[in-house]
Amino acid sequence: MNLHEKNKYAIMKIMELLENERIDDLEFNNLKIIQNKNGFCFGIDSVLLSDYAKNLKKQSKVVDIGTGTGIIGILLCAKSRLKTITGIEIQEEVAKMAEKSIKLNNLQEQFNILNINIKEVFNYLEPNTIDCIVTNPPYIKLNTGARNIENSKFISRHEAECNLEDIIKISYKLLKSNGEFYMIHRTERLADIMYLLRKYRLEAKQMRFVQSKQNLSPNLILLKSIKNGGNSVKIDKPLIIYNEDGTYTEEVKKIYNKR
Amino acid sequence: MNLHEKNKYAIMKIMELLENERIDDLEFNNLKIIQNKNGFCFGIDSVLLSDYAKNLKKQSKVVDIGTGTGIIGILLCAKSRLKTITGIEIQEEVAKMAEKSIKLNNLQEQFNILNINIKEVFNYLEPNTIDCIVTNPPYIKLNTGARNIENSKFISRHEAECNLEDIIKISYKLLKSNGEFYMIHRTERLADIMYLLRKYRLEAKQMRFVQSKQNLSPNLILLKSIKNGGNSVKIDKPLIIYNEDGTYTEEVKKIYNKR
Repeated sequence: MNLHEKNKYAIMKIMELLENERIDDLEFNNLKIIQNKNGFCFGIDSVLLSDYAKNLKKQSKVVDIGTGTGIIGILLCAKSRLKTITGIEIQEEVAKMAEKSIKLNNLQEQFNILNINIKEVFNYLEPNTIDCIVTNPPYIKLNTGARNIENSKFISRHEAECNLEDIIKISYKLLKSNGEFYMIHRTERLADIMYLLRKYRLEAKQMRFVQSKQNLSPNLILLKSIKNGGNSVKIDKPLIIYNEDGTYTEEVKKIYNKR
Repeated sequence: MNLHEKNKYAIMKIMELLENERIDDLEFNNLKIIQNKNGFCFGIDSVLLSDYAKNLKKQSKVVDIGTGTGIIGILLCAKSRLKTITGIEIQEEVAKMAEKSIKLNNLQEQFNILNINIKEVFNYLEPNTIDCIVTNPPYIKLNTGARNIENSKFISRHEAECNLEDIIKISYKLLKSNGEFYMIHRTERLADIMYLLRKYRLEAKQMRFVQSKQNLSPNLILLKSIKNGGNSVKIDKPLIIYNEDGTYTEEVKKIYNKR
């Protein structure tokens, strides 16, 4: 065991990591994240969303719906000038990991976790009090036939415990008028997303499609809505992840702070 | 007056062109179009839409809502294997021009014009009988303050006589179940469009954003909906109009048949 490994082991002990948990370096402002090796690990979508939302109004009270390991909140604490952020996470084990990551990054003053189902949120937070919501929700509609929802990865990926309509409806209620709502989702859900946003008057104001490469179809959407906002949408030029040779584009390098 | 000009003059006489009307060459299958020099002339959007819709099911009964000079129908007659197309145009002068263009291209067997407000369409066509609808509707929401709607250009561009909701609602009623709905519109209206499509169960199945150049935001959307279709949307890679040097991209050249 070399010194680096020893340090890591010491931290793991202090942080009370479970056997299946590991600490990953976010390579951004020295931030770290604790993840379950066998669970749902953060992907580029969380990184893109935290960057897309970074210009949220300063001193915002933020809520992250479905916070998972806390990745979006941790990055937002570093990238934006938010006041506080509350991460809502239904899975106990995952919520505990997020709390450990918050401690590890010394963000306890700003970032707290509510280990609840989002549907219970109004037992904890007042309606019309939140400035900004960020969410990287489960992407996949629940196939009502199959209900093997016992494992953590499944809940993170599928609309098992709450669906898009729950998230949008509750977000509307949580936000102040003109509050901001940032989401990343899959393009195949665009019709569902746009319908529900209008239904609950979280008006889509800005959108950006994400393509793996220049010549491919987009597969993700970044969007910003405003509660009770106007009807007109601004669509930015597509965000391209990879150059033709498979390296990150300059823009993505910048998002990862790797320039 | 050279021979070409003489021929043109002779055709103009035969076609009973008005003083402000001219014949333009579509540079596609020798097709021509009559347009009013002072009115709304067709743009690239009509050309793109006719190309986007060209794979409509063969032997389709098609309706073009807001047919204008007939440009989309004329191109579709050449590009697709439709059975018949009915162009609905509220402006009498414009409808007459379209009829003259149909005659000029010898398409009377396939293409007919109804000079009516779309809201009266069920006096002429039965509900649930149309296979495919194409529409390049007025893009701009009517500012209820200003109502200077007397001129033809204004009606072609603004939602003066019918709005997007009328078009989508009526299209749903006209189409057979699983009938196809093709539209081009401005990206700024995306939230309105998607909400109304879902509201009236014209489910968006395929979309394509159109950018002037690789590095610019999209400003137009091409879309295909299916009446009572499934919820999942496929978004194609963006359609780029111009290369960096201002020439048309290969794809657009192909659409214009200029390769």
